[in-house]
Amino acid sequence: MDISPLRPVNLELSGDRIHATYRVSGDAARADAVLAQLVVEQTIEFPPELVPDDDIREHIVGRVESIQRLGDHLTESSVSYAAEVAGGQLPQLLNVLFGNISMVPGVRLTDVELPSSFIEGLRGPRIGLAGLRARFLPQGGPLLATALKPMGTPVDALARMAYDLARNGLHLVKDDHSFADQPFATFRERVPVLAAAVERANVDRGEEASVYLPALNLPSDRLQDGMEVALEAGAGGVLLLPGLVGWDTMRALAESVPDGVIIMAHPAFLGSHVTDPTSGLSHGLLFGTLPRLTGADVSIFPNHGGRFSFSPEACTEIADACRAELPGVAPAFPAPGGGMSVERVAEMVAFYGEDVCLLIGGNLYRGDIATQVQRMTNAIEELQ
Amino acid sequence: MDISPLRPVNLELSGDRIHATYRVSGDAARADAVLAQLVVEQTIEFPPELVPDDDIREHIVGRVESIQRLGDHLTESSVSYAAEVAGGQLPQLLNVLFGNISMVPGVRLTDVELPSSFIEGLRGPRIGLAGLRARFLPQGGPLLATALKPMGTPVDALARMAYDLARNGLHLVKDDHSFADQPFATFRERVPVLAAAVERANVDRGEEASVYLPALNLPSDRLQDGMEVALEAGAGGVLLLPGLVGWDTMRALAESVPDGVIIMAHPAFLGSHVTDPTSGLSHGLLFGTLPRLTGADVSIFPNHGGRFSFSPEACTEIADACRAELPGVAPAFPAPGGGMSVERVAEMVAFYGEDVCLLIGGNLYRGDIATQVQRMTNAIEELQ
Repeated sequence: MDISPLRPVNLELSGDRIHATYRVSGDAARADAVLAQLVVEQTIEFPPELVPDDDIREHIVGRVESIQRLGDHLTESSVSYAAEVAGGQLPQLLNVLFGNISMVPGVRLTDVELPSSFIEGLRGPRIGLAGLRARFLPQGGPLLATALKPMGTPVDALARMAYDLARNGLHLVKDDHSFADQPFATFRERVPVLAAAVERANVDRGEEASVYLPALNLPSDRLQDGMEVALEAGAGGVLLLPGLVGWDTMRALAESVPDGVIIMAHPAFLGSHVTDPTSGLSHGLLFGTLPRLTGADVSIFPNHGGRFSFSPEACTEIADACRAELPGVAPAFPAPGGGMSVERVAEMVAFYGEDVCLLIGGNLYRGDIATQVQRMTNAIEELQ
Repeated sequence: MDISPLRPVNLELSGDRIHATYRVSGDAARADAVLAQLVVEQTIEFPPELVPDDDIREHIVGRVESIQRLGDHLTESSVSYAAEVAGGQLPQLLNVLFGNISMVPGVRLTDVELPSSFIEGLRGPRIGLAGLRARFLPQGGPLLATALKPMGTPVDALARMAYDLARNGLHLVKDDHSFADQPFATFRERVPVLAAAVERANVDRGEEASVYLPALNLPSDRLQDGMEVALEAGAGGVLLLPGLVGWDTMRALAESVPDGVIIMAHPAFLGSHVTDPTSGLSHGLLFGTLPRLTGADVSIFPNHGGRFSFSPEACTEIADACRAELPGVAPAFPAPGGGMSVERVAEMVAFYGEDVCLLIGGNLYRGDIATQVQRMTNAIEELQ
């Protein structure tokens, strides 16, 4: 028997707990062993037998609250952690929920319930689904979004497209997420010109019907500067890429903007968290809950039946997670995209309901842009 | 036939190309279809038939350079991209390499070759393997590292441990990666006290044998401040968590420190990129190449045979990627950890060679810390 060098520790804790649900693959014995590892791994990461009978053992080590066998090779468990372990900080919250255990195969984080003390520290979506609906959709119907493409196109040609898209009723005209700061269209050249093109379309249309959202796909140490360039140019929102900049950078950027600036989240580089159904995070957490917690008013994800292979069930889960009640956090618009077309408008609205942002990109360029956007808005009017 | 609204574009490009290797699961027809999607998806994300016969089609769309069938259900392909697509920026590089295609199952990024024009924009490891060896290991042997644990321990008790660990010859004494900014040991309380404890041990030992590395596990908007606190306190390095703060934030932080400050990377929250062998990134890229490109002098990963389930082959791949020649980027120390013990020292050095950082955590606390560290250093001396 080893003699631990640790002395017993007394801690003052609130009693607030973070609740997480995990699915563990493998037979019951493997699942139980993984759960026993998980509650230690995600907290003290220390041989538990060396911890004295103290508040660390009692409260800091995670607790398996329940175990349910969903089948011979699948176990679902609710685990709780003391709120203080996360310290009210998002990176450490993600670390506690899935930091080390992400490296153990067959463990999937499927749900999280945060204490209000943690939620209160986050702003969440500032405009959210209701705010966007009030601003753009007083007559009902889905929100319409598109991406300026393709990469390599000169700024003046992009500006003509942006004007045509906005002039014809697209609400959110965003940069393709691959518009970074490339020599063929630098960020500082591109953003003011495209913001002006959308604003000119609004003037010509006689209403503030469209917003331009530049992609803030920039190096970490240039994000704040990029945000200032975007806001000074009059961009009404920004596209953020949490898979590339980190979830907490997205949170901080979203918190930094003035009221009324729309935050749209793009899923680039996040796929590995969901493609293997036995590991990673659930689709709803990754593309619904996390974007909301970090301030997304609109969360983009690949629709089923497009170029990706998300199932209808996964898409429903995402849309539900975007819109479900979450005390203290406003709902966001789910924005299914990825190979969508005008022809799918009716089906997508039937599937998701009206509280959806239809993101249609390259397929709007099949012929004259104005004609294609008109076909899209006509398809939506026919649904009313 | 749709009439494209795009006019042909001429671009001035350097001819430099980024080369990436992908493995695609599924039969040859599926693999070829995925590769045809990939070169478009990762660049213009636009219906290719609508792109005129111009420089975008010719140079911006990725190119399948070679296809090799590794079996009936596995294809390896080399794909190249114009360097300008990444714009010399790391987030956009990651986006081009794996942004959208991460959401398609059965695609794994296994290798990357960057043009020198891109590499020149990165600092890479500033001290690196050779620098750490010259500083700590003039007599040869592996580098020794440990983590202060467990979370919940008061600062004064952590300081006693830090002193004991440094006093007895541990080179790198880092915070447990879960030390964030919690009420039981806030960052500002903890870091100066632990830095002072390690410095006191160095004074008592009569040599600068040890460095304290606080975990910079902080919210995005407090990282710079945390770095300043750490440097002012005299910490000789920092532990960064790219899975939580983002790779480019790590790069920017690592570039911001004065010469001589050690950068150690921790793998928390990165596991989903590697646990499914058919998707994500290769172990070598994720825990070797990427940490090096973003400035890690030491890269932590779970050793085989520990609490995680990385294979010996995966560990070799990581160690090789940490140490392999990469023009313009210094080699880094691979640091296998995760349930390591004094008993495994000889085996680990035999497996990895001397150019390894042995990261032993909780198992140093089995009895008196000084005795355990002495057992470890004795085990290493016996190998010489």
